[in-house]
Amino acid sequence: MSETRFGQNLDKSTQEEGEIFAPRFNAEGLITAVAVDADTKRVLMVAHMNAEALAKTLETGEAHYWSRSRNELWHKGATSGQIQRVEEMRVDCDQDAIEMRVRVSGDGNCCHTGRRSCFYRRVSMDQNGEARLTKTDMAFTG
Amino acid sequence: MSETRFGQNLDKSTQEEGEIFAPRFNAEGLITAVAVDADTKRVLMVAHMNAEALAKTLETGEAHYWSRSRNELWHKGATSGQIQRVEEMRVDCDQDAIEMRVRVSGDGNCCHTGRRSCFYRRVSMDQNGEARLTKTDMAFTG
Repeated sequence: MSETRFGQNLDKSTQEEGEIFAPRFNAEGLITAVAVDADTKRVLMVAHMNAEALAKTLETGEAHYWSRSRNELWHKGATSGQIQRVEEMRVDCDQDAIEMRVRVSGDGNCCHTGRRSCFYRRVSMDQNGEARLTKTDMAFTG
Repeated sequence: MSETRFGQNLDKSTQEEGEIFAPRFNAEGLITAVAVDADTKRVLMVAHMNAEALAKTLETGEAHYWSRSRNELWHKGATSGQIQRVEEMRVDCDQDAIEMRVRVSGDGNCCHTGRRSCFYRRVSMDQNGEARLTKTDMAFTG
């Protein structure tokens, strides 16, 4: 396990305005993390971190997540080369979500489908009021 | 309740590459939603939607969430005027996260602390290896 420890059980004012990092993990021990391209600001992926993944990310400067499907610590890019170097990490007001501005190594992709971003489909209502998906022009390149 | 219905139980290929919107709600019936400023691309907030909030968002074009603290449908801005007009909604590869590009009405703020974005603090390691928070220069204006 990691050496990094986090604050806990802050009052609301300290949680929102203070300098203590006290991430609020959910009942499964996870916090939501949004990775954004440091240059384009495009949202790349949304994933989850447990305390160890968050600590490893801070200690190494490379994004680590908790894989819920594999039930294991996931050093993003360790096998694919798509390492996410964290330029800046932020936390939200109530400290239950993380934003990371990252630069991606290797082929620059982030999604396991071979795209830069996992968000390659628009959701919209068709003429029958049904929600449908449409791939964006930049599905593979943007 | 809303009229909008969503797909369910798709095979992996249809889930990832198809045109059917089949959002995967978690055990609590919620899906993660990231709101991004349509102009600056800045991440504004991360919140959750249940099926009704997601349907209302699609039907009205205004962001609705599920408030976990108040345990109720939350039409963002209904009281504050900070309505989030959705310019584009996207879903990720495995359909368990939503991205929305929004324009905010009223004073243009998003966070209940009076800031544009909820992500107004950087997380970094200090010289003792402790994770600390630092407010950004743009804490209230950016």
